[in-house]
Amino acid sequence: MSNIIVTYRVIADKQSVSELARKIAIEQSVETPESLITPEIENRFVARVEQISPVDNEQDKFTIVLSYPEEILSQQYNQLINLCFGNVSMYQNVKLIDVSMPDELLNNFAGPLFGIEGIRASLGVYGRPLLATALKPRGYTYQQFADLAYEFAVGGGDIIKDDQNLIGDFDQFKSRVTLCLNAIKKAANDSGKECVYFPFISAPYEHIEKYFEWVKSQGVRGVLLAPLILGLDTARGLAAKYNLIYMAHPSFTGSYCVPPNDGMSYHLLYGTFFRLAGVDISVFPNTGGRFQFEESDCKSIAEELRKPLAKIKSAFPCPAGGMQYTDLNKMCDWYGEDSVLLLGGSLLEYSSKLSESTQAFKHKIAQPFNEKIKTPKNIEALSACEFSTSENSSLLEYLEFDDFQWMGRESVQYKQSTDIPFKDVRRVELIGKNGEQSKFDLRYFEVGEGGYSSKEMHNHTHVIIVARGEGKVFVGEKEYIAKTNDILYVKPMTIHQLCNLNAEPFGFYCIVDRARDKPIIVE
Amino acid sequence: MSNIIVTYRVIADKQSVSELARKIAIEQSVETPESLITPEIENRFVARVEQISPVDNEQDKFTIVLSYPEEILSQQYNQLINLCFGNVSMYQNVKLIDVSMPDELLNNFAGPLFGIEGIRASLGVYGRPLLATALKPRGYTYQQFADLAYEFAVGGGDIIKDDQNLIGDFDQFKSRVTLCLNAIKKAANDSGKECVYFPFISAPYEHIEKYFEWVKSQGVRGVLLAPLILGLDTARGLAAKYNLIYMAHPSFTGSYCVPPNDGMSYHLLYGTFFRLAGVDISVFPNTGGRFQFEESDCKSIAEELRKPLAKIKSAFPCPAGGMQYTDLNKMCDWYGEDSVLLLGGSLLEYSSKLSESTQAFKHKIAQPFNEKIKTPKNIEALSACEFSTSENSSLLEYLEFDDFQWMGRESVQYKQSTDIPFKDVRRVELIGKNGEQSKFDLRYFEVGEGGYSSKEMHNHTHVIIVARGEGKVFVGEKEYIAKTNDILYVKPMTIHQLCNLNAEPFGFYCIVDRARDKPIIVE
Repeated sequence: MSNIIVTYRVIADKQSVSELARKIAIEQSVETPESLITPEIENRFVARVEQISPVDNEQDKFTIVLSYPEEILSQQYNQLINLCFGNVSMYQNVKLIDVSMPDELLNNFAGPLFGIEGIRASLGVYGRPLLATALKPRGYTYQQFADLAYEFAVGGGDIIKDDQNLIGDFDQFKSRVTLCLNAIKKAANDSGKECVYFPFISAPYEHIEKYFEWVKSQGVRGVLLAPLILGLDTARGLAAKYNLIYMAHPSFTGSYCVPPNDGMSYHLLYGTFFRLAGVDISVFPNTGGRFQFEESDCKSIAEELRKPLAKIKSAFPCPAGGMQYTDLNKMCDWYGEDSVLLLGGSLLEYSSKLSESTQAFKHKIAQPFNEKIKTPKNIEALSACEFSTSENSSLLEYLEFDDFQWMGRESVQYKQSTDIPFKDVRRVELIGKNGEQSKFDLRYFEVGEGGYSSKEMHNHTHVIIVARGEGKVFVGEKEYIAKTNDILYVKPMTIHQLCNLNAEPFGFYCIVDRARDKPIIVE
Repeated sequence: MSNIIVTYRVIADKQSVSELARKIAIEQSVETPESLITPEIENRFVARVEQISPVDNEQDKFTIVLSYPEEILSQQYNQLINLCFGNVSMYQNVKLIDVSMPDELLNNFAGPLFGIEGIRASLGVYGRPLLATALKPRGYTYQQFADLAYEFAVGGGDIIKDDQNLIGDFDQFKSRVTLCLNAIKKAANDSGKECVYFPFISAPYEHIEKYFEWVKSQGVRGVLLAPLILGLDTARGLAAKYNLIYMAHPSFTGSYCVPPNDGMSYHLLYGTFFRLAGVDISVFPNTGGRFQFEESDCKSIAEELRKPLAKIKSAFPCPAGGMQYTDLNKMCDWYGEDSVLLLGGSLLEYSSKLSESTQAFKHKIAQPFNEKIKTPKNIEALSACEFSTSENSSLLEYLEFDDFQWMGRESVQYKQSTDIPFKDVRRVELIGKNGEQSKFDLRYFEVGEGGYSSKEMHNHTHVIIVARGEGKVFVGEKEYIAKTNDILYVKPMTIHQLCNLNAEPFGFYCIVDRARDKPIIVE
């Protein structure tokens, strides 16, 4: 049986510390009076007190080491949080200071999708820290933000993030993000160097995926999220579902770390727990800025994000919070090449031209290192599933069928072209483009003789009902001959393609979630 | 312009406190160096320092009152948290102690869906505190939990919640919850009194809605959620989407309240912020139990949950955490009739028969009050659309068609019965019940000669593709003769019925949102 080893530091007197240790062990595992704990429950579920030791030179402080049985974790991230620090967060003077577990348990957690290596590959920048900035202050026009983004990108900056106060409605969000995206695209053309832009997403649960879908559809490669506001696992799940680089903002996190005797260690929150929850870049206040984080705390966070950890990718530490040009040498020295240095206000203040300030800051950052530049990776193509039809149709209750055409619905035919990776596909948008309130779309596709759909995969599912003829269908490693009324379910991220080898058209209905990601075309 | 008034208590010296106040005002609104704050930004977005005053008898403690302009809030719950306590949570010795805003702003927040009145109506219990218990400890068999649920319900208890450590996979969850639900149904039959059961839901983001859909489909009326683990707005959104009573568990909350000089007031977290985020029942540790919450803190939470607050419903305070039989008088006295008293371990320990212990506890609770019982509100009817099929099918990629049967999918036939408002309907669940990750379900229905579906309406849409034969279809005021490959779209809340007047079966595919409301049967 594997164990999760959890260490707490408590204030207690020598006489009562063992009692407190036992109390925590029960509180966090079975939360039951002693009299109800049978030997079997004790063995299987109750945390074991492994060690109690006084803290050097600190009277009345002790560390308590507990081991939690693996079974009670149930391999769930939310339960990891609950188990290590759920109820005991409400005890006074109990601080969670360390958590460790065997590699086979760690590997149940997602970890960063991209990690340091993935982000470097998408930027093509190696061998030096990355330079990041924030779009602020709230109150600037969207065009002013776009101009800042352009100046920073053309000056050689690597990452632009929104300020976490740039909150508006969806239309405002789209306008602002569109302008900024266009600005960094123009900058990439003008300068020949990539810069990525991470919009801040914070919206009501009912609407938040709409924001993700939209940014994904615009080719955004990463987002800024506040995990303690969205929920640690919610933020992870959203970033993962849309396959986005995940930069974590520390808003609403401080109460877990700044109290001297409560909460948890800095390295656990901004390091371990964030990294296990998929954070690619963890933003935290650097010592010496506007916040009172200590040097050792900051270094422990960086170490925790980058240390070898089972199969889990390493994440970028991102010190921030009032850093100045004059702090750059020390930051490079402390954090080394695998870090993101976030400079907001001081960069804006440094000179009247942001592109020049950015050049100066970047020069300072690159100086101690040997920068290497490679070609960034970024691929997109038009898919047979998603080519668009006219939008001039209206909401109808009844669509009368007539030889695989429907009254009131346009049929769009694509023959072969060199630009598109599919051939002889006809498409009818039946339900979904006309204001229907379903959460799915219904489309009809028809593949002519020798035709085929694009070979692709995506995070959304397909449900296919064959309506006429027969086709050869490839799904993952498998191959089917699908005939009328056969049904196919294509799982997320499974490569698939539909082909017609016969003279009769191969027609099928295809149902997809209304909110869905763009297909990735496979060569 | 309306303002949000936010009060902090800080440790500072007299010389520097105004500087600190200004620093917080900027940190929380525009987070920008002074030099970049234009007069327009200052006026529109920067918080104003309204008041600084020393705390009585506490040297070096001051309260700082800031007013945040409404515009920066953008009417978003997540932004409320970020605005009041985002970055400043990382300042040492700054405690958020109060938040207030005008009614028109408050009314932008959801608040409890059910509130005290709604929960009383669904239970039919008025005029006394409700008695709740928790199913624990982990390690009991599911049957043991079901037996506890039965005993508690038959003994007259009102609310049963899962312990927050009852975590397993989806199948385990379904088995356990099914047994407990059956137990409370049996108890309601045996005793004539309703008791509600709130399963604890905590699952990865990718799967969590599956749990909500399932509990909803089983007639569960409420859930226990941990808002600080799921995310405050995520938990709200999930409970609202599925129209469930929302009991909040305080796991992982303590660090916000227990530190003496950091974090925030008890009444803000477990009161204001929880209530605005839709919590119907807020569980918190009562003073004198296993936790060190003070009497005044507990009372302030209860007051905050129940005070008049714009149009927002009041929520139940639910003191818990090691309460004993001997505490009941005091709890009744402190919290009054509009409270939920949660007793777990002590109830289990009280006697060898839980139904008798429950009777004793409930008697003690009811004694000081005048209980009134009304008929609980709960109406359900079986619809042709929603009768359930066996759950023994598995996720399949390919469903081979054979004469309107599909390999691996059971066909369920309902002939006429006096209980059901439809006739001769056969149903095949094709996609959706087997772990498919689509947001919709695909079903096949077939109506025999002279058969018809129930006349009904619902908020979700139907998309229908005719697969065989022809039928007479009523949608709202209209009537169609629908033939193979005709498509129908049924708008929300539109009465509809499908009939077969011919000898040949009338078969059709029907696509619905996975998350959907129950149909309302029309006579």
